[in-house]
Amino acid sequence: MSTRLHQLLNDYHSGWSLDQAFYLDENIFSEEWNHIWSKGWLFVGTTAEIPKAGDFFTYTAHKDSIIVIRGNQGEVYAHYNTCRHRGSLICLQERGNTQALMCPYHQWVYDKNGTLLNARLMQEDFDKAEFGLHSAHVQVLEGLIFISLAQDPPDFASVVADYTPFLRPFQLNQAKVAYKASYELRTNWKLVAENFRECYHCGPAHPEYCRAVIGANLREDVDEVLADRRQAWQSKGLATETVEFTETSFHFGVRYPLRPGVQSYSLDGQPASKPMGLHQDYDAGVLGLVVLPGFWMDAVSDYVWTMRVTPLSAERTAIELTWLVDGSAVEGVDYTVERLCSFWKVTGEQDWALCENNFQGIESSRYQPGPYAPAELDVAKFVDWYIGRMNEGVWASVEQVY
Amino acid sequence: MSTRLHQLLNDYHSGWSLDQAFYLDENIFSEEWNHIWSKGWLFVGTTAEIPKAGDFFTYTAHKDSIIVIRGNQGEVYAHYNTCRHRGSLICLQERGNTQALMCPYHQWVYDKNGTLLNARLMQEDFDKAEFGLHSAHVQVLEGLIFISLAQDPPDFASVVADYTPFLRPFQLNQAKVAYKASYELRTNWKLVAENFRECYHCGPAHPEYCRAVIGANLREDVDEVLADRRQAWQSKGLATETVEFTETSFHFGVRYPLRPGVQSYSLDGQPASKPMGLHQDYDAGVLGLVVLPGFWMDAVSDYVWTMRVTPLSAERTAIELTWLVDGSAVEGVDYTVERLCSFWKVTGEQDWALCENNFQGIESSRYQPGPYAPAELDVAKFVDWYIGRMNEGVWASVEQVY
Amino acid sequence: MSTRLHQLLNDYHSGWSLDQAFYLDENIFSEEWNHIWSKGWLFVGTTAEIPKAGDFFTYTAHKDSIIVIRGNQGEVYAHYNTCRHRGSLICLQERGNTQALMCPYHQWVYDKNGTLLNARLMQEDFDKAEFGLHSAHVQVLEGLIFISLAQDPPDFASVVADYTPFLRPFQLNQAKVAYKASYELRTNWKLVAENFRECYHCGPAHPEYCRAVIGANLREDVDEVLADRRQAWQSKGLATETVEFTETSFHFGVRYPLRPGVQSYSLDGQPASKPMGLHQDYDAGVLGLVVLPGFWMDAVSDYVWTMRVTPLSAERTAIELTWLVDGSAVEGVDYTVERLCSFWKVTGEQDWALCENNFQGIESSRYQPGPYAPAELDVAKFVDWYIGRMNEGVWASVEQVY
Repeated sequence: MSTRLHQLLNDYHSGWSLDQAFYLDENIFSEEWNHIWSKGWLFVGTTAEIPKAGDFFTYTAHKDSIIVIRGNQGEVYAHYNTCRHRGSLICLQERGNTQALMCPYHQWVYDKNGTLLNARLMQEDFDKAEFGLHSAHVQVLEGLIFISLAQDPPDFASVVADYTPFLRPFQLNQAKVAYKASYELRTNWKLVAENFRECYHCGPAHPEYCRAVIGANLREDVDEVLADRRQAWQSKGLATETVEFTETSFHFGVRYPLRPGVQSYSLDGQPASKPMGLHQDYDAGVLGLVVLPGFWMDAVSDYVWTMRVTPLSAERTAIELTWLVDGSAVEGVDYTVERLCSFWKVTGEQDWALCENNFQGIESSRYQPGPYAPAELDVAKFVDWYIGRMNEGVWASVEQVY
Repeated sequence: MSTRLHQLLNDYHSGWSLDQAFYLDENIFSEEWNHIWSKGWLFVGTTAEIPKAGDFFTYTAHKDSIIVIRGNQGEVYAHYNTCRHRGSLICLQERGNTQALMCPYHQWVYDKNGTLLNARLMQEDFDKAEFGLHSAHVQVLEGLIFISLAQDPPDFASVVADYTPFLRPFQLNQAKVAYKASYELRTNWKLVAENFRECYHCGPAHPEYCRAVIGANLREDVDEVLADRRQAWQSKGLATETVEFTETSFHFGVRYPLRPGVQSYSLDGQPASKPMGLHQDYDAGVLGLVVLPGFWMDAVSDYVWTMRVTPLSAERTAIELTWLVDGSAVEGVDYTVERLCSFWKVTGEQDWALCENNFQGIESSRYQPGPYAPAELDVAKFVDWYIGRMNEGVWASVEQVY
Repeated sequence: MSTRLHQLLNDYHSGWSLDQAFYLDENIFSEEWNHIWSKGWLFVGTTAEIPKAGDFFTYTAHKDSIIVIRGNQGEVYAHYNTCRHRGSLICLQERGNTQALMCPYHQWVYDKNGTLLNARLMQEDFDKAEFGLHSAHVQVLEGLIFISLAQDPPDFASVVADYTPFLRPFQLNQAKVAYKASYELRTNWKLVAENFRECYHCGPAHPEYCRAVIGANLREDVDEVLADRRQAWQSKGLATETVEFTETSFHFGVRYPLRPGVQSYSLDGQPASKPMGLHQDYDAGVLGLVVLPGFWMDAVSDYVWTMRVTPLSAERTAIELTWLVDGSAVEGVDYTVERLCSFWKVTGEQDWALCENNFQGIESSRYQPGPYAPAELDVAKFVDWYIGRMNEGVWASVEQVY
């Protein structure tokens, strides 16, 4: 296996799509899980979903069910959902509220912070301190919750520094979850990432999106509009400095303009809810933030849309979408779920079909890597990043062996 | 593979739950099939299901469909359901009655005892005597049918000696099958066995069971009640001597008391049918018998409940439950299916959920073996037995190779 | 793997059914795909399904979706359904008509012949000539379309020479597709081929078929009827010379008589449609043609029935049936779908059940090869052919390695 993977990594040709094996091979998927997903920061949800102490939800990452739970002081914990007694799942619900985490099998009881509080009828010399829940690292960034399954996760400080000014105006801590949608796609997760890194396909595939975003069709000049808007944004104190994707980073963000006259990501261009957080009007453009490997966010003045990508196998990918509005927005008064969600429902489902077709075609015995167009430069950068991380991980494993 | 299995067997820590691989790994499941399931005695059903000559049912053990059929003198045969011509299934029905076994493909005809009776249009020198059905060993113990797929199965005499006195009063040969239920669980078969070897979970998980069985909640002293009942049972000629599980045996049985005033395994403690066989009253307590790896039985004065556990893979397990009543009991008069079955339907389904949750939690990357409580001593013994059989089998294979 | 396959090939005993591994093992299936299916000529459909320029249908062969499309001059192309840009599927529909093949992802446009016509927004030095679709070889034999995925497919000339005289009277180029039916069976493809090579099973399993075909029950002498009919057929200019299956060929065909008084493959023996093509009456008997590994055809004076067998894995096989009638036949006037299809629907479904039962029985741990009856001589020949091709392929691979 690893000899073959080394060969494939060596053979990688930057600027061309990946070899078939990177999309289809379950052994390579395993290596990806170890070298990319188990090492990085994974977006799981928002504090708006667990506002009160004891509120929790579970997140499934590959084989691991993770309990994300709010502590008594508002802090957030992430625990592996496996009892230290005989391994049973502890939380069976997808979300809820609990004073403590009690295993339904033999009633071992854990504190919100993971400490084992009670294990009835155990031996006298049983030391509860040794049997707390296994936990994952947690970072809360302006209400966005990221976890890491790594022992020693990468530094998150630059993400915090770069994104806080962009996120602060949305006041996500006080936001309200208006809607959630889940999809399971028959595609490789990287094809979703590639899809979201280019607009070469937008003209033909996304008429609604192109009506909202100037330049998305690759046929319009946006420089003038952008310069004009940037000035307006800066005058309101909105961050505008693009966060570039560098060789060593795993995040990038940008604010870009809507088409003049368009006020929100909606099918008719009209607002979808009241301005969110500190926003006073409908002129914040679109804020696009990414934290690889699985977090994508697009925000307009009146709502935030997050996409959580979780690979299930080489050929299956789970998508969870969340729409967040201002904490004071009232359904039926300030927004309706249908109006709020229709833009990304339409656009997203166009993309899911493209990603599934792409995967199916790659299964062909005659598939071979093809050249990216100039408009797909960011796809090439993503793939370079992917190969870089795989090279790092795979060669580090080799060193460990010798 | 085998090096890793040897390592895992060496690393086993008695008194702690097993390493993850023993529950999840399909290669280890294969070894289990070879060293435990293919070697032992497997309960398949009761003679009450096939009372007449030619009555048959089929049982699926991993890849093998087995035809269990009653012969002309009341004897029981077990044949592999694969024609000696081109391998077709012979019996397509789950149960039925037939004079002879005819393959539906080319009409080769076999006697109930497996002899090839007719193979039309074959070569003149074709010797029918060489093409009888392959058969499995059969033992009938007081109406309970056990088969073994082994060439040389273990001695069954001690099971017969130990269990006959317990079983005789039920007169299973003349019993009536009142109901059957099947389940397919997403769990490893050993987690079902472990679940059925402890009552540490009964207090929280089984309120109905605890209402029927004194001490099941682990909070009541049962010595006095047991001593009292034992004397009564002995005076009626009921066997009471516990059959202990020893290092070399694969069966164990015990009679234990119901809560005073409770007469049967029913939700209200009242009888569920007429006393069975030679029983004259509702005071036989509970008779629990086990034949590893897959037979579990709980009997009260008025009915016998059997559980047949068959693993399908590391992660799938089939359960078949049978409720047997006295041969003369009439549905609607002496019993109703609903009353008869509700106790074990409720209790069993509580257990299936626990076993599935246990499995799911063990899939976590952070699962690690945990310590059994003192109340789980019999679980530890079962796991010791399992590891013992695997060690025997695995090391014997090594010897065969060298 | 290959050592084991070599051993199995060496151990093959002609005249007996194959070792279990040839039916169940997915690694051997992979080798079959490489050495038999990827090398041979595969029937995909008929020109009657794509009469006009731009008409297309897709065919799935293992991992490959193939677009079969009619060119501007009536020629037929077969292209791999994977875009040369990033690999997406191009044709998403099962069938349709199109001026050109446009990838739905980024709108690369290909001509019907596979040439890349347009790739918008690509680099200036991008050479379209290097990015045409990958194509498969195509042979059209009297309206029957065969493709080969091989680089260098076997000579098709003898098939053309042998079959043209048989096929010409049906005028398949002007035929009409009356009905199509698809099945997915849980069986190995070779068990379907074996089933269609013998009538040892016809007496017991196919009462309708035996009512139509004299001798199918193996209990009637057909020599006299055959001699009589042959003379009649020859007098009408119908080909009658059996195409024998030889050690180096992959096709065989024969014309045989219906039972006197029976005019068509129908449940009542009466015609099912008007005489087809050049036929003037209902006395052409049955024309059976085979092109291994996956084409089977049975034709009577008034309709042609084709069976396309495509393995999906060792244990799954797709069957597509097509009923073709004269191009001028009008539904409801000359034929009804129900009458036309009932004979093969009944007979085929009897066979699918037999093939699935056969497979299930072969899964038994005690399955072992059994002897073919004299009436199964053609099955033995097919299996010999299969083993011959596998030997060729497997040993050629060994040579390539050394």
